[in-house]
Amino acid sequence: MIKTTIVGGSGYTGGELLRLLNSHPEIELVQVTSRSHLGEYVYQVHPNLRKQTTLKFTDPDTIQPVDLLFLALPHGSAQNKIDQFAALAPNIIDLSADFRLHSARDYERWYGSPHGAPDWLAKFVYGLPELHRAELRSAHYASGVGCNATASNLALLPLVKAGLLDLQQQVIIELKVGSSEGGAEGNAGTHHPERSGVIRTFSAYGHRHTGEVIQELGLSNVSLTMTSVDLVRGVLATAHATLKPGAATKDLWKAYRAVAAENPFVRIVKEQRGIYRVPEPKVLAGSNYAELGFDLDESTGHIVSICAIDNLMKGASGSAVQCMNLMLGFEETLGLEFSGLHPI
Amino acid sequence: MIKTTIVGGSGYTGGELLRLLNSHPEIELVQVTSRSHLGEYVYQVHPNLRKQTTLKFTDPDTIQPVDLLFLALPHGSAQNKIDQFAALAPNIIDLSADFRLHSARDYERWYGSPHGAPDWLAKFVYGLPELHRAELRSAHYASGVGCNATASNLALLPLVKAGLLDLQQQVIIELKVGSSEGGAEGNAGTHHPERSGVIRTFSAYGHRHTGEVIQELGLSNVSLTMTSVDLVRGVLATAHATLKPGAATKDLWKAYRAVAAENPFVRIVKEQRGIYRVPEPKVLAGSNYAELGFDLDESTGHIVSICAIDNLMKGASGSAVQCMNLMLGFEETLGLEFSGLHPI
Amino acid sequence: MIKTTIVGGSGYTGGELLRLLNSHPEIELVQVTSRSHLGEYVYQVHPNLRKQTTLKFTDPDTIQPVDLLFLALPHGSAQNKIDQFAALAPNIIDLSADFRLHSARDYERWYGSPHGAPDWLAKFVYGLPELHRAELRSAHYASGVGCNATASNLALLPLVKAGLLDLQQQVIIELKVGSSEGGAEGNAGTHHPERSGVIRTFSAYGHRHTGEVIQELGLSNVSLTMTSVDLVRGVLATAHATLKPGAATKDLWKAYRAVAAENPFVRIVKEQRGIYRVPEPKVLAGSNYAELGFDLDESTGHIVSICAIDNLMKGASGSAVQCMNLMLGFEETLGLEFSGLHPI
Amino acid sequence: MIKTTIVGGSGYTGGELLRLLNSHPEIELVQVTSRSHLGEYVYQVHPNLRKQTTLKFTDPDTIQPVDLLFLALPHGSAQNKIDQFAALAPNIIDLSADFRLHSARDYERWYGSPHGAPDWLAKFVYGLPELHRAELRSAHYASGVGCNATASNLALLPLVKAGLLDLQQQVIIELKVGSSEGGAEGNAGTHHPERSGVIRTFSAYGHRHTGEVIQELGLSNVSLTMTSVDLVRGVLATAHATLKPGAATKDLWKAYRAVAAENPFVRIVKEQRGIYRVPEPKVLAGSNYAELGFDLDESTGHIVSICAIDNLMKGASGSAVQCMNLMLGFEETLGLEFSGLHPI
Repeated sequence: MIKTTIVGGSGYTGGELLRLLNSHPEIELVQVTSRSHLGEYVYQVHPNLRKQTTLKFTDPDTIQPVDLLFLALPHGSAQNKIDQFAALAPNIIDLSADFRLHSARDYERWYGSPHGAPDWLAKFVYGLPELHRAELRSAHYASGVGCNATASNLALLPLVKAGLLDLQQQVIIELKVGSSEGGAEGNAGTHHPERSGVIRTFSAYGHRHTGEVIQELGLSNVSLTMTSVDLVRGVLATAHATLKPGAATKDLWKAYRAVAAENPFVRIVKEQRGIYRVPEPKVLAGSNYAELGFDLDESTGHIVSICAIDNLMKGASGSAVQCMNLMLGFEETLGLEFSGLHPI
Repeated sequence: MIKTTIVGGSGYTGGELLRLLNSHPEIELVQVTSRSHLGEYVYQVHPNLRKQTTLKFTDPDTIQPVDLLFLALPHGSAQNKIDQFAALAPNIIDLSADFRLHSARDYERWYGSPHGAPDWLAKFVYGLPELHRAELRSAHYASGVGCNATASNLALLPLVKAGLLDLQQQVIIELKVGSSEGGAEGNAGTHHPERSGVIRTFSAYGHRHTGEVIQELGLSNVSLTMTSVDLVRGVLATAHATLKPGAATKDLWKAYRAVAAENPFVRIVKEQRGIYRVPEPKVLAGSNYAELGFDLDESTGHIVSICAIDNLMKGASGSAVQCMNLMLGFEETLGLEFSGLHPI
Repeated sequence: MIKTTIVGGSGYTGGELLRLLNSHPEIELVQVTSRSHLGEYVYQVHPNLRKQTTLKFTDPDTIQPVDLLFLALPHGSAQNKIDQFAALAPNIIDLSADFRLHSARDYERWYGSPHGAPDWLAKFVYGLPELHRAELRSAHYASGVGCNATASNLALLPLVKAGLLDLQQQVIIELKVGSSEGGAEGNAGTHHPERSGVIRTFSAYGHRHTGEVIQELGLSNVSLTMTSVDLVRGVLATAHATLKPGAATKDLWKAYRAVAAENPFVRIVKEQRGIYRVPEPKVLAGSNYAELGFDLDESTGHIVSICAIDNLMKGASGSAVQCMNLMLGFEETLGLEFSGLHPI
Repeated sequence: MIKTTIVGGSGYTGGELLRLLNSHPEIELVQVTSRSHLGEYVYQVHPNLRKQTTLKFTDPDTIQPVDLLFLALPHGSAQNKIDQFAALAPNIIDLSADFRLHSARDYERWYGSPHGAPDWLAKFVYGLPELHRAELRSAHYASGVGCNATASNLALLPLVKAGLLDLQQQVIIELKVGSSEGGAEGNAGTHHPERSGVIRTFSAYGHRHTGEVIQELGLSNVSLTMTSVDLVRGVLATAHATLKPGAATKDLWKAYRAVAAENPFVRIVKEQRGIYRVPEPKVLAGSNYAELGFDLDESTGHIVSICAIDNLMKGASGSAVQCMNLMLGFEETLGLEFSGLHPI
């Protein structure tokens, strides 16, 4: 059994890691830390785990050496203690934004302050297996992924891999997101009477995850527009782009099928009848799947490519466990087999 | 035009008063106070009022004399300043719980601390027109009503007025409530990911509004059980009680019809077909109606009596404006004609 | 009092008309027809109207002459009986799609079959007062508006009027819509377990309302992408467009303010702080307001312009009553003063 | 591997069985039948199973012999073909209401028509392991359970087992239920604009599941009141009952803890602080747990006992798989380990 510890386990991402690692057949979960909930049973904060574990939150200053550390701290924290963490474990997966961008300049551009450990940036592999599977197999350090970046990157992946995209044209990505994306700490805008039934476009430009889309897909002219809707878990990315002249629907099918064939957690949803014709995040709650679909206007070359994910799974903790499986030589899908629920 | 001022206008109850008074044909709204939002336009806090009013929140220490003061302060505030408020206006309607109970002992029982102005308790009429219409016509001071108490009192009113209820038997009232009942200030439990889709029975005994049901209906053995559900506005009270021997369905129809006939905002919903057979709060959002229905098991005398209201209207600000209309000699329904929306 | 009749009053649009006309101070509602609910009280189908009216649905074959007929029939119906309807009333407002497009060719392009009364197309004024106020004042025939077209047209109106838009560039409009848009008749996809919590992009190209955007704004290269979200009433249009070189934020403020100043139901929502910084449909339920906002990336000229409306009000019945007010010489806002609710 | 077949796999109960059996380590799922979806991939009806199975729906007239048949047909179907089904498999679990009641007279009372195979009633064990574990271990035929009956039976189980309940007093059970309880076939009342945000008390007396509560707990004076709320999966039962004189809170703790200790899927939720103090169905979606809690008024002996379950899991398919595990000698919890999600 591989020994792991979760540093920062009281948030939604930490809770999802807890759920996954607690039932993972090859993992022994040694410690889960939380300063604010120190001494409480983890199930008092993550009520789904009651009768599934008797772990209590421990002091982050008492972390014991393990095989792999998961860091689920607020953005900006891990970079300042990365040397200490590295002394405790040969493998680290950091779910914050601290080690996603490879360039310290990009980090400062998107996060507004200089990086605290720029030398470490090159040591981390960007933690999306669909983009970096081979590197992850030999990696010791992996970053997490931004949930909106992941929905965007996977929506465009088939087009980029097949070379179908006209990279000179603007790419507009509209993201509709659930409330868990904002984390476990509420604010005035997440108070239920204000947040229920909302359609709120809150960030038209400059979303931090844009940096991850630019870096990973090599795009230059791309914008992410965020709209909150009434749902807890889920992101839907609707990417508007332009294809190179001549690209036809059959080329798209080939490109999307290739990506689905290579990646166990990618599935295409594009049906002509029934209720479930397009990717939808609701049915993905708790699952690690990304659903892809597309719609091409052949007369203009305008394409709408759609990706649905669970922001806490494929967009965060699920991808992190998938990275762990690759890094440790396990079956890639181990512990991530949950199919999602229907109806839900 | 009658001059009124709202003291404490930034909460949900204050906002609903604002909406009603702003469009009331006989009212001039002079001031709306708020310490925390001092100087802001009221529409920045109540976004439905944008382009409907250019009022700004003013300092509660600068209240000018008016004809009628509405007090929409947190519980426990008004009782300590009631003499000062009375010096500013000949008429006061207090929407808090401070002047609902007539006995200082009852107040202490349900609110846990001695009342700050016990001599004033007898001066206030309990502000539910369906129970105290005649007194309100000559009153200068009226209390507000508890929203759960109002749904409970109206559910049982036809039975009590017609003398059909077996007062020796226990009355169990189950209330299902929306999230606006908790007010505009959020807490960890109202954070959308935690509150969305919830069915949470949070108070089985000892709810403070029980005191208002005991006082107003003369019941002794009654309990209120509260369950939060996924809705913003609305309360449904389902009251389980026992009828005196011999009471039959036709007696109930007579009793309920009598109450609906006397009260412009009471309507009976009891249909044999269609979708809308029973009282439902959702269609009442924004309206001052209370919907009543019932179901009798003639073999046992067990009755289920149901009342649906909008907690911010009939359960708070709507009833307060109705009281004002009576106190000032206006048509009882003036400014309260909004029918509610369908669908919603 | 002006006599009006609603032809086809059992759907959501007809019900909203009923609500508005029933409380309109200058209107006498003579008849409401429905074949499927013939003889039922209208409140059995529109439960918000219980105790507000005792009208029953009447036979559409017994329509009496009146001053104004509202047609709220399914698409394709009114065009085949328009001569009969015109014989019954000197004024007609048709809420279906039958008389929105001026060209029979456009009609066939978007609706897939030849128009049944092409000679009538030129007699109808497109029923959006924000675009055709002057013509409506002297019109006898007005069409309704598509709800998605209205959100799109109003989102772009300030830019088009001020000549700021680069008409050569593609305009991408993303619409997020509530479930009432699909009408009162359900289908497998609107069953609550399937529709609740959904984010479903169901129409990336070819939405019929596109024709109304092209016609009214003079755009050529525009697409509407529709996404269903969990809400009953409301549409949010997020329009992505490109400005002519040199256009700056101050030009936009001027353009948006001009439109808000000219139109009583247009308001700008663009705040730097608080919860309510951007247009949101939820607070508009039941109101006739359209909220506009924008966000400009000055470095690229890419603009996101946002419009929120209630699809049943500004997007259908509210605009129709506003047209009626203009056609009959009433105050434009008469009977449409409801402010919307907060919270909701 | 044990061979099983699901007869009637297109509904919500059948879909949940599919999900559970498809990932059960000891089960080979041979066939899933559906007349209406014959020939379709099961994932076209249950979209969570896409890329998890390539099974197609087969003809119910071509069922091959297997080790165990799950019957998930509409109520009233299985009883008329039970001999044919029994010829195909030595073990049968029927999820409909056909074999839950042991007496043909009771069946006729609650279901309104004579039973089609009364001789078979005695052969079936009532399929709630918490009540019939020992019998199920040697059973070949097990019934399903009513979801509302299960929430009610488990809410009262600790009180009945410990002999704390005053059986002379009326027991009032209030159930709040999600929309999946009504099944996959929609009707006018489940259309999203009508069902969203609803609080609808639709059955105050005579709910069919009452028969299962009377039979299993030996109660005589019990009523079930049903209220639909806005949620897809979940039931909360709030049972109001009276304890025998002298019963105190410590006796209750002992009684509830005994039941939780004996039953792997029962957990007590009764906390003094935090958000998660009481049983809540929302966190149970997809899990087989039943959460129990209670609140005693020691001054009157009135108790409120609460049970939360997922109606499709513990209230239907989860309990059925638990029965299967017992009948076939597997670990009781096998294939039912999913913890539920938080947040959701």
